[in-house]
Amino acid sequence: MKLAASLAIAAAACALAAPASAQFAKPEDAIKYRQSALFVMAQHFGRIGAMANGRVPYDAKAAVDNAEVVADMAKLPWAGFGPGTDKGLSTKAKPEIWSEQARFKEHSDKMIAETGKLLVAAKTNNLDTLKAAFQSTAGSCKTCHDAFRSQ
Amino acid sequence: MKLAASLAIAAAACALAAPASAQFAKPEDAIKYRQSALFVMAQHFGRIGAMANGRVPYDAKAAVDNAEVVADMAKLPWAGFGPGTDKGLSTKAKPEIWSEQARFKEHSDKMIAETGKLLVAAKTNNLDTLKAAFQSTAGSCKTCHDAFRSQ
Repeated sequence: MKLAASLAIAAAACALAAPASAQFAKPEDAIKYRQSALFVMAQHFGRIGAMANGRVPYDAKAAVDNAEVVADMAKLPWAGFGPGTDKGLSTKAKPEIWSEQARFKEHSDKMIAETGKLLVAAKTNNLDTLKAAFQSTAGSCKTCHDAFRSQ
Repeated sequence: MKLAASLAIAAAACALAAPASAQFAKPEDAIKYRQSALFVMAQHFGRIGAMANGRVPYDAKAAVDNAEVVADMAKLPWAGFGPGTDKGLSTKAKPEIWSEQARFKEHSDKMIAETGKLLVAAKTNNLDTLKAAFQSTAGSCKTCHDAFRSQ
């Protein structure tokens, strides 16, 4: 009974995990995919940061355009962290991503939520609102990197 | 007069070019950005291709989800082909991208249009319609790669 239950749980876990990992032909593709999505997102997020920090003049339309890309991209990387994608290409991903999946998902869900709020903030066309949302989103990036990305 | 006119054209060209190249801290970032955006797009496009070619069962919702990412991503890479981004990182981009900018833009505009049609086709929930749009979009990828990407 104990074994049967364990097998049932294992089978359920595989079934849940299969779609994400099956999306990629090989682990290298999954790693390259998540790194690519995060890099594209970071470029657009950085442009909002430059406005929030006063390095470039505030441009309300550019802020919205960039926040839209950030919010879209924020949904993508996580499919690239499927089982078996901890190695295969140079990666800073820590083993904790796979050993503490629930905690990792909390962080990624939080980041998705923060980028959604960032887009709402950008659409207010108010620089102070944008600054606050940028700081909050940047905080969610940092918290996750501290926990799950090696230096 | 001739020189003045040339200088005016050159100044206008610089002014037009500046925003795109100024978005990136260095040419390497622009190259990595366009490669990343194209890689993410290709992963999602490949999933539609797998359905169109019968390698995986047709899933109407998955087709729409993937087509949405493809259509979003298709708009991004082109900002990464600004002046001075022909080298700095390993790239298959041919010099013709910069020496024949109008033709390159025709190809990228065509690709953006095709991915828009692909999304519309995916939303019809009809596999044959999706197949036709996939072939047409794939054709626009190939035409541009043949002209502007080295093997």
